[in-house]
Amino acid sequence: MSDIEERAISTIKLLSVDQVAKANSGHPGAPLGLATVAHAIWKQMRFNPKNPDWINRDRFVLSNGHAVALLYSLLHLFGYPLTIDDLKNFRQLGSKTPGHPEAETPGIEVTTGPLGQGISNAVGLAIAQKQFAARYNKPDFTLSDNYTYVILGDGCLQEGVASEACSLAGHLQLNNLIAFYDDNHITIDGNTNVSFTEDVNKRFEAYGWEVQWIKDGNNDLNAINKALEQAKKSNKPTLIRLTTIIGYGSLQQGSHSVHGSPLKADDIKQLKEKLGFNPEENFVVPQEVYDYYNKETIQPGQKLEEEWNALFKSYSEKYPEQAKEITRRLSGELPSGWEEKLPSYTKDDKALATRKLSEMLLDSIFDYIPELIGGSADLTGSNLTRSKEATDFQPDDAPAEGNYAGRYIRYGVREHGMGAIMNGISAFGANYKAYGGTFLNFVSYAAGAVRLSALSGHPVVWVATHDSIGLGEDGPTHQPIETLAHFRATPNLKVWRPADGNEVSAAYKVALGSKHTPSIIALSRQNLPQLEGSSVAKAEKGGYVVKEAADAQVILVATGSEVSLAIEGAEALAAKGVSARVVSLPDQHTFDQQSKEYRLSVLPDGIPIVSIEVLTTTGWAKYSHEQFGIDRFGASGKASDVYKFFEFTADGVADRALKTIEFYKGSKIVSPLNKAFYSVV
Amino acid sequence: MSDIEERAISTIKLLSVDQVAKANSGHPGAPLGLATVAHAIWKQMRFNPKNPDWINRDRFVLSNGHAVALLYSLLHLFGYPLTIDDLKNFRQLGSKTPGHPEAETPGIEVTTGPLGQGISNAVGLAIAQKQFAARYNKPDFTLSDNYTYVILGDGCLQEGVASEACSLAGHLQLNNLIAFYDDNHITIDGNTNVSFTEDVNKRFEAYGWEVQWIKDGNNDLNAINKALEQAKKSNKPTLIRLTTIIGYGSLQQGSHSVHGSPLKADDIKQLKEKLGFNPEENFVVPQEVYDYYNKETIQPGQKLEEEWNALFKSYSEKYPEQAKEITRRLSGELPSGWEEKLPSYTKDDKALATRKLSEMLLDSIFDYIPELIGGSADLTGSNLTRSKEATDFQPDDAPAEGNYAGRYIRYGVREHGMGAIMNGISAFGANYKAYGGTFLNFVSYAAGAVRLSALSGHPVVWVATHDSIGLGEDGPTHQPIETLAHFRATPNLKVWRPADGNEVSAAYKVALGSKHTPSIIALSRQNLPQLEGSSVAKAEKGGYVVKEAADAQVILVATGSEVSLAIEGAEALAAKGVSARVVSLPDQHTFDQQSKEYRLSVLPDGIPIVSIEVLTTTGWAKYSHEQFGIDRFGASGKASDVYKFFEFTADGVADRALKTIEFYKGSKIVSPLNKAFYSVV
Ligand SMILES: [Ca+2]
Ligand SMILES: [Ca+2]
Repeated sequence: MSDIEERAISTIKLLSVDQVAKANSGHPGAPLGLATVAHAIWKQMRFNPKNPDWINRDRFVLSNGHAVALLYSLLHLFGYPLTIDDLKNFRQLGSKTPGHPEAETPGIEVTTGPLGQGISNAVGLAIAQKQFAARYNKPDFTLSDNYTYVILGDGCLQEGVASEACSLAGHLQLNNLIAFYDDNHITIDGNTNVSFTEDVNKRFEAYGWEVQWIKDGNNDLNAINKALEQAKKSNKPTLIRLTTIIGYGSLQQGSHSVHGSPLKADDIKQLKEKLGFNPEENFVVPQEVYDYYNKETIQPGQKLEEEWNALFKSYSEKYPEQAKEITRRLSGELPSGWEEKLPSYTKDDKALATRKLSEMLLDSIFDYIPELIGGSADLTGSNLTRSKEATDFQPDDAPAEGNYAGRYIRYGVREHGMGAIMNGISAFGANYKAYGGTFLNFVSYAAGAVRLSALSGHPVVWVATHDSIGLGEDGPTHQPIETLAHFRATPNLKVWRPADGNEVSAAYKVALGSKHTPSIIALSRQNLPQLEGSSVAKAEKGGYVVKEAADAQVILVATGSEVSLAIEGAEALAAKGVSARVVSLPDQHTFDQQSKEYRLSVLPDGIPIVSIEVLTTTGWAKYSHEQFGIDRFGASGKASDVYKFFEFTADGVADRALKTIEFYKGSKIVSPLNKAFYSVV
Repeated sequence: MSDIEERAISTIKLLSVDQVAKANSGHPGAPLGLATVAHAIWKQMRFNPKNPDWINRDRFVLSNGHAVALLYSLLHLFGYPLTIDDLKNFRQLGSKTPGHPEAETPGIEVTTGPLGQGISNAVGLAIAQKQFAARYNKPDFTLSDNYTYVILGDGCLQEGVASEACSLAGHLQLNNLIAFYDDNHITIDGNTNVSFTEDVNKRFEAYGWEVQWIKDGNNDLNAINKALEQAKKSNKPTLIRLTTIIGYGSLQQGSHSVHGSPLKADDIKQLKEKLGFNPEENFVVPQEVYDYYNKETIQPGQKLEEEWNALFKSYSEKYPEQAKEITRRLSGELPSGWEEKLPSYTKDDKALATRKLSEMLLDSIFDYIPELIGGSADLTGSNLTRSKEATDFQPDDAPAEGNYAGRYIRYGVREHGMGAIMNGISAFGANYKAYGGTFLNFVSYAAGAVRLSALSGHPVVWVATHDSIGLGEDGPTHQPIETLAHFRATPNLKVWRPADGNEVSAAYKVALGSKHTPSIIALSRQNLPQLEGSSVAKAEKGGYVVKEAADAQVILVATGSEVSLAIEGAEALAAKGVSARVVSLPDQHTFDQQSKEYRLSVLPDGIPIVSIEVLTTTGWAKYSHEQFGIDRFGASGKASDVYKFFEFTADGVADRALKTIEFYKGSKIVSPLNKAFYSVV
C-alpha cells in the first residue's frame, strides 16, 4: 500500500469516526473495518460527481446502511456536493446527512438501513443494466457496461429478502454485480456464532455465484484490487468475502460495543495518533488526499463521461431511432401518446375480471413502452401479468427461453425479493417502470420493500390479483382483510382497486405516469360488469360519482368488486323509494390530491355516507360516516357463497344504507372531508 | 412394495383426486406426486388419532399447503375424525375441509398455504421438542422424543422466510426435523428452470443440514424408508430431496397444467383403471386399506400413548415437581400467582423507557414461568428482551454458550423466520409462550407470519421497541408510521402501546394470559414518566380515563409516549380555562372486548374527542372525531427535535384541542362508538 493510499484510508476512517462522535450517535465500527475496501472500490469506480445521473456510471450500494458515516466520508472526498459542515451535521434534523443513506442525496443510489434491502436493490440495478445494454448496445457501441458494487454485512445475509434476490441473481448470471461481504463476526447480539454458523461461501456457490475470500480485509489492499479484477472477468455475480475486524484500530476493536455507539474521546485520540493525525483536530482532510482522489478518480470519471457523450453522439447518427428513445427515456418522459393505447369500455362490453382487463391493457401497451419491465413472483398464469408481446429476461445460455433484452422477469416465489429488485430497477434510471405480480395477500410478504418504494419514491407497480374473499375456495389464508388498510396508511403509496375496465386503465395511467409514487393495483379474480357511469377521465381523479341520484338520502362509496354491488344496492333502495348516490373511490391517495371543492362535490356535507368494501373497515371513516366491511378473517367456499355469508348482497347493502339514514335522521351531517384541523405535511 | 401398500397409496391418490374433482377446485398434481412418500411417513409416525393433543406425538407439516387434499385423505385413512362426507365437501363454505390446511382441524398441526411458513413452523416445532425434552427428560425417562416431518415444495424453498428458518435450524442442529423436498421441477410458472436453478442440496449442506436425494420419489418406497431410518440417526436436520413427477399417473403428468386445476373426467377414469380401481366409482376406500393402516399405525399409536401415560405415571412418582409442572402446562394454565410477579409503579417512580420496563418485567417473571421462551432477531441489547435469568437455547457443542434447556433464542437478523418459528413453538403445545424482539418497524418484515399467528390463534408476543419518531436519529427508514394501523386492522391481534410501567405490566398480563390471540407490544426507546392515573387493573381493560376533568369540553385519547404529552396538553388547556379529559387507550382490541357501557363511559356522547399518536391517523376515527398524527414519513434528528418538528408538544396538542372544540361547537356530538350498524362477526 502506498503512503498516500494509507493516508486516504485513514482520512476516510477518521472523518467517519468524527461524524459519529460529533452527533454522539451512529455506528463507527463498520466504517473502521471497511475503509480499506471502500477506498479500493471507489478509487476504481467510473462516475462523475458533477453529474450523478450519468447513465453509465458504476453504482455503489451500502447494504449495511447503518455504516452511512463511511458513505458520507466517501461522497465528500470523491467530489460530491457534501461539505465538511454537512458531515458535522450528521444525524441532525434537516441536515443532508441523515442517520441512514437516503436516495435523494446525490451519489446515493438507494435508501438503505433496513437490512437485506440494499443487496436486493443491487440485483435490480444489475438486471436493469443488463437489459439496457442488451436493448441498446451495438457491436460498435458499448453504451452500457457499468458495474454495481455492494458492501453488505452479516445482517443482510441473514435476511430472507437477500436470499431470494441472490438466488435469482445467480440464476440470471449477473456478472455485473460485485458484492463484498464484511465478515466481521459481529452483530448487535455479539459474536455471529450465536446464530449464524452457516457456510456462506458454499451457500453463494449453490446460488451460482463466484466466491472469493480475503482473509485480511483490513489491510490487504493488494488482494482486494486483484479480487476486483478477477470479479470483472467472471461470468457470474461475485461475492468477495472479506474477513475484517470491526472497529479496526479502536481500543474496542473486534467487539460488538464498537458497532452502534460512538468511540470514547480517549479512543479517538489514540486512533488519530496511531494513524499519524493530530489527536486534537477533527474533520481533517489532508490536501494531498483531496488531490489524490481528484487525480485518480474524479478527473478520469469526468473524462469518461465526456467520452461517453461523444460516443452517444456518433451512436445517434448511426442509430437515430434508438438514440431518440434513449434520450426520451433519460428525460423521464414516457412515449408520447401512450395514454391513447389504454383501452376504454362501455356498459355493453362484457363482464371480465379486472385481472383479465389488466392483462389486456398490458398487451396493448407493452410494446409501446420499452421501459416497461414486468414480472411475477410465480403465479403468472393467475396474475395474468405476461403480455403476449413479452420475451422472458434470461441469460443467453439459460435452460429456459429468453434473453437479456427480454422484459418479463420470472422472479420465482420470492415476493419480498421482487419488491426490492423492482426498487433497484427503478433506481437505475432510464425511466424504467417495473411492475410485478402476486396475489394481493402476499404483497404483505414484501412489506419491507414496499415501504422503501414509498419512502424513496420508486414508482413501481404491484399487480395484486385475487384481491378479496372473491377468490373463494383458497380461503382465509389467501383472502386479504387488513391488506389495503395497511398500504393505504403508508405515505406516498397509491392503492388502486378498480371496479371495471375503465378504472383499470385509469389506475395504470396514473401509476405509470407517476414519477415518485409507487402503486398497488388490487384486481379481482372474479368477473365484474363494465359500469355505465365510469370513464378513464373520471376514475383518474381517484374518486367520482358513478351513479347520481336526485336528492340523494344516502351516499354509498365503494371500490372494486363492490361498486357494482353498491349500484345494485342503490337499485334495491330505489325500489323502496329511497334515493342513493353511488361513489366509486378506486384510489384514496389520488382522490386526496384533488381540490377540496371537487372532493366535497363527490362527498358533500348534508348526506350520510356508507362505505362498502369486503375488507377491514379500518381507514374508511376518513371518507364515510358508517362502514360496511369484514373485520374478521374470511372463509373457504365458493365466492358467491362467501359473499352471501358476509351479507355482501344488494339487500345487505340496502339494509346498511337504511340503518344509516335512520341513524342520522335530524342530525347536522358534516362530510368526513371537513375536519377541525389537518395533518402537518 | 407390497400389494397392500400399493393399494393404500392408490387409495390416497384417488381420494385426493376425487376431492378436487368434486369441488371442481384445488390442486391434484402434488397429491399424485406425493402419495408414496406421504404413505411412508405416516405409516411409521407415532400418534394416536383419538387424542390429537398427545404431547409426544410425531408432528407432520404440509408446507405446500395447496396439496391439502392429500392431507385430508391421510387424516381420513389414519383414523382422524374426518369422514368421506367431509371429503366430499372439500372447499365448500362451512365444511371441515377448507381450501388450505387450518390448524383447528384435529391432526393438522399448523395452518399452511402461504408458502415458506410451514417449514419454518416446523423449525419451531422442533425447537420446542428439544427444549421440552431437555427440561423434562431424565436418564431413565424419555418423555419427549418425537420427530417433526415436513413435506415442502419448490415454492417453499424460494421464499426467504424458509431460508431464514432453515439456516437457523442448521445452526441449532435440530436432528428431530426431517423434511422431504418435492423436487418436481414445476411451479405455476411452469418449469422451475425459469427462475430456480440453484443447487438446493448444496445450499442446505451450507446451512448445516444432512442432505439425501431419492431419484424416483414416485415409486421407490424402499429408498424412502431407508432415508427415514438414516435421517433419524443424523445429528443434524435432514432434507430428503425427492425427485417426483407432478400429477403422476395423470395424462397431464409432469406439466404445470396439473398443478392447480382438477383433472378431466377422462383422465380420472384412466387413472383409476391404471390403479386397478373401478373407474365409475368415487371416494372408494377398500376395507383392506382401512385394516392395514389400523393394524400398522393406528393400533400401535394408541398403544404407544398408553405406554407413555404409564411412563408419565411412574415419572410422577419419581419427579413429582416436574410432573406437576408438566401437568399444569398441558392443561394450558400458567403457574398460579404469576400475575403477582408483574411490577407496578406509582407516579414517584422514575421515568424509564417502556422497553426498559419490559426488561424489568421479564426479569421478574422469567424464572416463574418455565413455558416462557424468548428471543430476539438480533438487537438483544436494544430490545432488552433477555432476562438476566435466561440461558441461551443452543446445542451442547455449539460454539456459543447455552444448551437445549435454555429459553432465549438468538434468532439472528431474521424477523420473518422468527415470527414463523414462534408460531411453530406455540403449535407444539405444552403452553409454550414464545416472545420475540425486534424494532417495531421490522415486525413488518414478518407480516406474513404475524397474519398466520392471528388466523391460527397462536398467542405469541412481539416485543417491538423503538416504536416511533421517538427513536430519533436512525430516521425515517426506522420510524414506524403505518405499522400500528396495519396490525390493528388485522383480526384477532392485540396491539399494545403502553404509556408507562403499569401499562407494560397490563400488556404482558393480557398477552401472556391469552390462549388464542397474539400480541404486539410497542415500546419506546425514550424515557416516559410513570403516570399518576394509571394502574394495571385499569390498563388491562385496554382503555381508561387516565386523567379526569370536571365538565370536560374535550377528550384527548392517546397511547404510549403521547399519553404523558396529552396530559401536558390538558394542563396547558387548563391554564387557558379549558377542561380536558385524557384517555389512555393502550390496546384497541382489548378495549373493544369491554362492555359497551364501559366503553361509552370512557368515550361518551356529547364531548368531542381528539386522538393523539405520532403515527398515521388511519384507524383512529373509530375512537375519535379528530385525529392528530403523522401522515408522512418521519425524519432523522434528535428525538426532541423531531417531536417539535411535527408539533407534538403540549402547545401543539392544546392547539388541536381548541380547534376541535370550536369545530364541534353547537353540534350534537355522538361518540364514535355509537354506530348505525355493526360488523358481521
Ligand atoms: Ca457484522
Ligand atoms: Ca414444485
